[in-house]
Amino acid sequence: MRFKNILVTGFDRSNLDKDVWQQINKLTEAIVFEPQKDVDCLFCRFNKVDKNLINSLPNLKFIALLATGTGTVDLDYAKSKKIIVSNIPGYCTQSVAEYVFGLILERIRGLERAKQTARKGDFSGNGFSATEIAGKKFGVIGLGRIGRRVAEIAAGFGAKTYYWSKHRKSDAEKSGLRYESLDKLVASSDFLSLHTLTSKETEKILNAKRLSLIKKGAMLVNVSGMELVDLPALEKRLNRGDITFIFDHPDEMDKKDVTRLSGYKNCIVYPPVGFITNEARVNKQAIFVANLKNFLQGKPSNRVN
Amino acid sequence: MRFKNILVTGFDRSNLDKDVWQQINKLTEAIVFEPQKDVDCLFCRFNKVDKNLINSLPNLKFIALLATGTGTVDLDYAKSKKIIVSNIPGYCTQSVAEYVFGLILERIRGLERAKQTARKGDFSGNGFSATEIAGKKFGVIGLGRIGRRVAEIAAGFGAKTYYWSKHRKSDAEKSGLRYESLDKLVASSDFLSLHTLTSKETEKILNAKRLSLIKKGAMLVNVSGMELVDLPALEKRLNRGDITFIFDHPDEMDKKDVTRLSGYKNCIVYPPVGFITNEARVNKQAIFVANLKNFLQGKPSNRVN
Repeated sequence: MRFKNILVTGFDRSNLDKDVWQQINKLTEAIVFEPQKDVDCLFCRFNKVDKNLINSLPNLKFIALLATGTGTVDLDYAKSKKIIVSNIPGYCTQSVAEYVFGLILERIRGLERAKQTARKGDFSGNGFSATEIAGKKFGVIGLGRIGRRVAEIAAGFGAKTYYWSKHRKSDAEKSGLRYESLDKLVASSDFLSLHTLTSKETEKILNAKRLSLIKKGAMLVNVSGMELVDLPALEKRLNRGDITFIFDHPDEMDKKDVTRLSGYKNCIVYPPVGFITNEARVNKQAIFVANLKNFLQGKPSNRVN
Repeated sequence: MRFKNILVTGFDRSNLDKDVWQQINKLTEAIVFEPQKDVDCLFCRFNKVDKNLINSLPNLKFIALLATGTGTVDLDYAKSKKIIVSNIPGYCTQSVAEYVFGLILERIRGLERAKQTARKGDFSGNGFSATEIAGKKFGVIGLGRIGRRVAEIAAGFGAKTYYWSKHRKSDAEKSGLRYESLDKLVASSDFLSLHTLTSKETEKILNAKRLSLIKKGAMLVNVSGMELVDLPALEKRLNRGDITFIFDHPDEMDKKDVTRLSGYKNCIVYPPVGFITNEARVNKQAIFVANLKNFLQGKPSNRVN
């Protein structure tokens, strides 16, 4: 079994390696970049796949997401048309988890400034101070794949690891991770890392009250979406100058908001480069191709609708 | 029992916290910063304590090092004069070990450049790539306190951890760390971190042959002294452009050598800020004061001669 016509939307040839395109070529009669009537498979990434697009493809049977998040696809409408949707979960777990510690250590050790002073020939180390991760309370909010890996690495550093998640995870607790209510976790952690899915339920989960609870001197890292945070309340708290906030999804925000946040010395902005390791790219592409093959064999994998 | 006269050399009032000076005040009749005849206790740090200095202090009974390294003090001569010398071992183990991972992650995730592009308003993440620590071979050279902690944290990241040390450590091997000959370790590791003591035996332990063995694409971190590395051979290897070298003791080197090394894009220079956490400073001062008290009570601690 092969596809008749794959329509690529939301990305281009550069987003997959050459050998991956070669594998995909064997699974279809044609690959197109403009809608056609006989398209039976749709590739998409972060772009909207709504009723209009779905209706314009009367023979569509499969939507293959080159991403984890499914919020951009009208899953229910696809289901009503018997179109199967598959995503790519978990491909960047380790990539993002390691990145979180890069962001934390870069900040607490002042590495950017350290490199710059060394470049200027100042090898004194004067004016630098730092703290350790070991012995501190490290709170993970949301214990999915990434949150769990972050907690494990934090434990390797010697931190006291705690979590809050919608559902308690007894297996994680058996290996030493401790559960706390979200308010208590937010109020008592030295490091806080946000890893809940973004949904209506978790929107502004860091609300004004919780942001005001954060311990003085604490560091809050958000490599998830900024929908999780009440922005005006965050700004108010940043203005007190007693917490550090690090985030990496300015790309999904209003530019004005990013500019305002960037104005705070205790707010560090990164581009979204948490998921970009070579290992993650290989994982992602392998799962993507496997999803195509499994659909063709009548055993769809990573189905989300 | 109290000291009669403590002579401070190699540092000043700013190197110890106020409350620590207050504790020391209670242990001596006087603290001086210029040699005096009745000095019975000498404070020093990285400064030379040679025969001349020792001979100039006829009543000297105790030398208290505010440092781990003892190479600056003529230990044998002190011993021949029945002068006891104590140092401060292990105070910065965690501080240095965490720092090593900061240096590694800063480089493999391109964090300096990432922050800079975000500051310019470029949130695309274009042009960034990275690798993971997990799954890689992480080789520790020298399994003292710091080397061991580095190996433990690397294991927390999911690296395959190996070590070479002068003596095999069966307890470390029981917890999963694997031993390899130095040549094999150097030739096969993706990450190499140097933690042997600097001594005549370990001088240029990374010699021309071993530097040429290092795997293509590997990253070598040296937060120990640069005496461990054959500099001309290092430069030759850096010139091939296929390894990354990170070090943080330019302060102990010839400026010309540092300038030449800094010219290589694959050589990253930091000032010596590995041991500077608040926790390390507190540890250090506590051990320093304890050494003084223990000497006065006739039970010298951390004696090195």
